[in-house]
Amino acid sequence: MIPSTMQDFPLTIAALMRHGRSIYADSQCVTWTGGERPARRAGFAEIAANAERLAAALARLGVRPGDRVATFAWNNQEHFEAYLAVPSMGAVLHTLNIRLFPEQLAHIVNHAEDSVIIVDDSLVPLLARIMDRVPTVRHLIVVGDGDASALGRPVLRYRELLAAEEPGFAWPELDERSAAAMCYTSGTTGDPKGVVYSHRSTFLHALAANSSSLVGPREDDRVLAIVPMFHVNAWGLPYASLLSGATLHMPDRFLQPEHLTAFIASERTTVASAVPTIWHAILDYGDRHEIDLSSLRLANSGGAAAPRALLERAQERYGLRIVQGWGMTETSPLGGMAFPPPGVEPGSAEDIDWRMKSGRVAPGVQMRITDPEGRELPWDGESVGEIEVRGPWITGSYHLVDAPEKFHDGWLRTGDVGTIDRRGFFQITDRVKDVIKSGGEWISSVELEDHLMSHPAVAEAAVIGVPDPRWDERPLACVVLREDAAATAAELAEYLRGRIAKWQVPEYWTFLDEVPKTTVGKFDKKPLRARHAASDLKIEKL
Amino acid sequence: MIPSTMQDFPLTIAALMRHGRSIYADSQCVTWTGGERPARRAGFAEIAANAERLAAALARLGVRPGDRVATFAWNNQEHFEAYLAVPSMGAVLHTLNIRLFPEQLAHIVNHAEDSVIIVDDSLVPLLARIMDRVPTVRHLIVVGDGDASALGRPVLRYRELLAAEEPGFAWPELDERSAAAMCYTSGTTGDPKGVVYSHRSTFLHALAANSSSLVGPREDDRVLAIVPMFHVNAWGLPYASLLSGATLHMPDRFLQPEHLTAFIASERTTVASAVPTIWHAILDYGDRHEIDLSSLRLANSGGAAAPRALLERAQERYGLRIVQGWGMTETSPLGGMAFPPPGVEPGSAEDIDWRMKSGRVAPGVQMRITDPEGRELPWDGESVGEIEVRGPWITGSYHLVDAPEKFHDGWLRTGDVGTIDRRGFFQITDRVKDVIKSGGEWISSVELEDHLMSHPAVAEAAVIGVPDPRWDERPLACVVLREDAAATAAELAEYLRGRIAKWQVPEYWTFLDEVPKTTVGKFDKKPLRARHAASDLKIEKL
Repeated sequence: MIPSTMQDFPLTIAALMRHGRSIYADSQCVTWTGGERPARRAGFAEIAANAERLAAALARLGVRPGDRVATFAWNNQEHFEAYLAVPSMGAVLHTLNIRLFPEQLAHIVNHAEDSVIIVDDSLVPLLARIMDRVPTVRHLIVVGDGDASALGRPVLRYRELLAAEEPGFAWPELDERSAAAMCYTSGTTGDPKGVVYSHRSTFLHALAANSSSLVGPREDDRVLAIVPMFHVNAWGLPYASLLSGATLHMPDRFLQPEHLTAFIASERTTVASAVPTIWHAILDYGDRHEIDLSSLRLANSGGAAAPRALLERAQERYGLRIVQGWGMTETSPLGGMAFPPPGVEPGSAEDIDWRMKSGRVAPGVQMRITDPEGRELPWDGESVGEIEVRGPWITGSYHLVDAPEKFHDGWLRTGDVGTIDRRGFFQITDRVKDVIKSGGEWISSVELEDHLMSHPAVAEAAVIGVPDPRWDERPLACVVLREDAAATAAELAEYLRGRIAKWQVPEYWTFLDEVPKTTVGKFDKKPLRARHAASDLKIEKL
Repeated sequence: MIPSTMQDFPLTIAALMRHGRSIYADSQCVTWTGGERPARRAGFAEIAANAERLAAALARLGVRPGDRVATFAWNNQEHFEAYLAVPSMGAVLHTLNIRLFPEQLAHIVNHAEDSVIIVDDSLVPLLARIMDRVPTVRHLIVVGDGDASALGRPVLRYRELLAAEEPGFAWPELDERSAAAMCYTSGTTGDPKGVVYSHRSTFLHALAANSSSLVGPREDDRVLAIVPMFHVNAWGLPYASLLSGATLHMPDRFLQPEHLTAFIASERTTVASAVPTIWHAILDYGDRHEIDLSSLRLANSGGAAAPRALLERAQERYGLRIVQGWGMTETSPLGGMAFPPPGVEPGSAEDIDWRMKSGRVAPGVQMRITDPEGRELPWDGESVGEIEVRGPWITGSYHLVDAPEKFHDGWLRTGDVGTIDRRGFFQITDRVKDVIKSGGEWISSVELEDHLMSHPAVAEAAVIGVPDPRWDERPLACVVLREDAAATAAELAEYLRGRIAKWQVPEYWTFLDEVPKTTVGKFDKKPLRARHAASDLKIEKL
């Protein structure tokens, strides 16, 4: 064996910051202020100098390596400064999700033992609701000059803290595997679980984000991060910008379509990333107002599957290519982007077909699908399995919580179910909890529902798995018929037989007046499962 | 302190290979065969399967983890397969520079203790010259069916070895910091020194190469690696292609302009990387023949500074943007590429000004310039210092050789001298050995020579440093006047005074009939220094 002669150079957030400040000193972070006042602008060199001041201030407040410093903030310049300062001084940045319920929020602040919270003045009322139950928090730093009395404690002002310090903080040499930042999942069941990113994982994720197969920003790009810094690291765009020199557009609290479109039009945004709901809102707004999206060369959509109609509408109305990406808190988050393969005519139906995929496996990420018994399935675009991932920016555990059910031989079980084709394009069709395990195979409830709802007599259909002595589980179709329409279970089963594999056709049927819904209008299957368990559904067996 | 929850996922060449084979199975490696026969094509999945066969064959031959397996080969498919197989099985790929003198070649084979050499049949005669002095070499594997009797030993045939094996080699789990490959510098002075790349450095270099600020290949690119795999890792393009899916064009031994242009025209190459000499040859060839370079979107030039006339000619004749890059064996090699900043009109004089820079600091690389006392100099585009670099793919030592003079506080001293501007564009003006240290500042001999040769009476001018009691060193101008022209030292000094700082103007002058030259026609200053040391030059002091 011979040793490598390569330098032992740690992959750190400080290295990203140094690159941005020294190579792209003039690239900017532009924070929207609502349109009446000019947007706030700061070059990367200024941002880095502010990060040094912030680190000095935090050190003066007693923040030590490993301490958790939380943010409760929109996407803005100061949040970016905290993204740089906190990890680079050896502390751990904890981005708090402003959308959590107070109980969840208090739980994660206490679980992480946050010692400082940096809060935007506009979010003071939301944070105030937990101030009586977060004993580890020693200091509150308020960004902006707004009233903070609701917090019921003395606060420090971000601006004053920084003004009292000089730039030139001596960043420590850090182990690249040390903790840099943490984020809690917003799981719909159970308590949120903490994922702790390392300097290494963040550096690698930023470098990969600059690949053309992921976001691929260039120095002449102006990248609007609508996806939140408080939940999915804004897809890593802040860090990626430091490496590429792309100007960063930050919407702050102005996430309404009138603000986003004004921002895009006036600053000539070239790349924007958001959840489908935001893209919907922008297009809806565009139907009623004059908007200018002509500067956008790329729109990324993630966080949930976008309907085809959204992609078609963006394409037809604005020539805007929405490309879907996939990721989760546990994956930093970039796991793949659905850029069509070469040779596809941009804007064509085929182009949209590809962009309807959930993603294509990112460089640096390893993916596989497994059947209910944990056996690996082929990448044939047809075999349906649970998606599992591995890689240097994928979590392998949770902070202080054992969750063996989330891992499988060192791979993260994503809880997403879908197919992978021979080129690494994956299509997520279900969540594991929504699929029915039947004889070692999976049946997609979502697919069954889509087919059922395409029947002219069906208004709503929800499919749940119910125990079956022979097949383990079998699908139960819960159907709401349209008013004045009629169809029997046998007729509907016959209708399905022409559309899906015979063994997938439900033999259990029930007819309801309405499918229960969640507060955001999605089908809520929990009450259905409960009613079935309580034998409170009238089941017809074919 | 809290631990990161990220997976411990090693950055290895096997991971690059796996991405290429699984995501870009159909992306190809195309090897030119001279134009009379069809080019040889293999998809990345086939390449990876061949790499498995090669690893199995090498293991059967007794190659163990850490053993050195050398290649003596052109850029072609089999060389690519060795790039994957040898490191991924835990052995160390040693790329031999086919252009070395036999003594140097034998020295490095012995120094590295190569146990196997994979040799292209067309290179058998070159390798044969050292076969009597490389006792560590146990096996010779010949690629191609050509005569190999000149080697004077029994040989194995690559094709037969692979045919005897099945794909499916079980790649071992490797430490990312273990040795993956090695390459010896072709230093002009002293014995070549070995640089040993790690899996980690190679992975990171490939990921960075895919950034838009470096080469940035995309899946729809067809990348022609003219820069040799045997010396500068073909700029990392083979590995970068696995991550991006770009098709790889390999010229094999057909480096003549008629072959390269035929390759580019018939395979519609989009990106090509070569030394300036090759670009010159291609343009010269184009002056005399019909060539089609219209498919090229980017031409990279590196290895030596390209003259402005070359960039202008490529731009004017073919609309071809040659972008310069910088690197060396010690830097894997990518250290920076001179892509102009945003807002510069492509093809304009300003665009060419930027592309005349040596590079712009690469993401992941840290650069600085230092004065003769080792003090860091500002990035003002004017201060001239030795370029030093640091980073995860920069060497920190040499294989089995102590070379403390090559390092400075953990930074690699590149031996290149130049400026860096405030945006990280660097301009190399000299080699350290060609600059004159005068009173703690550097005087560029190249710059003095350029100014002197712009004088109408001067045919040639070489400037060397000579000892000076007060200033340490001072420049000695060695001037060859044009026939029938006359100029005195005082007149030439006066001419310089309007062009450079006064303290840089030489006070020592000598007039010669001719400046000594190297075999490739460059000024050779060693004889001048020797003559000066022997008081064999007639010096005039102003």
